[in-house]
Amino acid sequence: MRLYDCKEAPNPRRVRIFLKEKRLSIEHIEINIRAGDNLKPAFLAVNPRGLIPTLELDDGTLIDEVVAICRYIEEMHPTPVLMGTDAKSKALIESRNRHVEIDGINAMTDAFRNSVPIFAKRAIQGVVEETLAIPELCQRGHAGITRFYDALNKYLSTHEFVAGSQFSIADISALCAVDFAAWIKRSIPEEHEHTQRWYAAVSARESSRA
Amino acid sequence: MRLYDCKEAPNPRRVRIFLKEKRLSIEHIEINIRAGDNLKPAFLAVNPRGLIPTLELDDGTLIDEVVAICRYIEEMHPTPVLMGTDAKSKALIESRNRHVEIDGINAMTDAFRNSVPIFAKRAIQGVVEETLAIPELCQRGHAGITRFYDALNKYLSTHEFVAGSQFSIADISALCAVDFAAWIKRSIPEEHEHTQRWYAAVSARESSRA
Repeated sequence: MRLYDCKEAPNPRRVRIFLKEKRLSIEHIEINIRAGDNLKPAFLAVNPRGLIPTLELDDGTLIDEVVAICRYIEEMHPTPVLMGTDAKSKALIESRNRHVEIDGINAMTDAFRNSVPIFAKRAIQGVVEETLAIPELCQRGHAGITRFYDALNKYLSTHEFVAGSQFSIADISALCAVDFAAWIKRSIPEEHEHTQRWYAAVSARESSRA
Repeated sequence: MRLYDCKEAPNPRRVRIFLKEKRLSIEHIEINIRAGDNLKPAFLAVNPRGLIPTLELDDGTLIDEVVAICRYIEEMHPTPVLMGTDAKSKALIESRNRHVEIDGINAMTDAFRNSVPIFAKRAIQGVVEETLAIPELCQRGHAGITRFYDALNKYLSTHEFVAGSQFSIADISALCAVDFAAWIKRSIPEEHEHTQRWYAAVSARESSRA
């Protein structure tokens, strides 16, 4: 099993933290996204969508998309449980993880990819053809980040973790999202005490260094 | 168990088809998205994100997000299997379903929500505050739809279904995506014979009428 990875990108980090929580160590192959290596023929032969992370199994099967990769790992190595134990907890963790992705990571990605010069003509991840940045979409992304942080702080005022009372994949996604948002100066607002408390706790876990 | 539903919207239809494939019949509560009823206090008390579908369990637990709802149903009613049987098939179906969502449904949603007059100031689903349509994002969405259809036809030239050789949640997502795209005159290109063959087969299933 080996992981096509990119050290500085937020999505592959989600898988790395997931692996560390499971105490699994696998081979990593570094792909440089800033240099556009994910859009060159060598990597497109591995994943035609040009996206990292991608997991390659020993039988050659390729799995992309963070949560699909984590699903495979969770099924093969069930403990510690990161995606729920029964129908209800699995569904609620999946729902909360999607809130982080849709309301948080997607808004951050819109704000980031539509503003930084290096991606001015590559405004969508994994798309080979020229795609121009849209300044209004960067603004829309920033408004989304504000909503995401407000909702997260409210949720964490009554829950220990992002999906209830147990650490889960949703915390991993949110931690990577928050650290990603710092790139565009959108760290957790200082006054969001509940999110600050949560962030301190999850950042103190050994896995966060992945 | 009851479902907050909207007859004409593509995402709740994915859950309705999933339920029909499982031969389950549950209570439905209709919410009118065009009239903005999903953004009014009564529904926001059910789901603060203002999104449909939302599933309410008999114990009052609320689950939103299509795939999280389907996960709950799949776990409670495993047959017929729609989300995989082992680690590899679960991961591959999840990956393919996400391709449909990210490359297909998201592009279609960008093209639709940023062009139709009724959503000119409500360009993101579920967001209460005014969000103006972005014409360039509509164009970007249309380019994404073209890429999605090209990749789908290529995949279906060597696979019977959207995620391999078995009907799955990925077919349900893709069927609803294709029928949604017809609203903005982006039906399957006539020359895409493999996608046409697949579409005829999945549309002929009784569940497609949900």
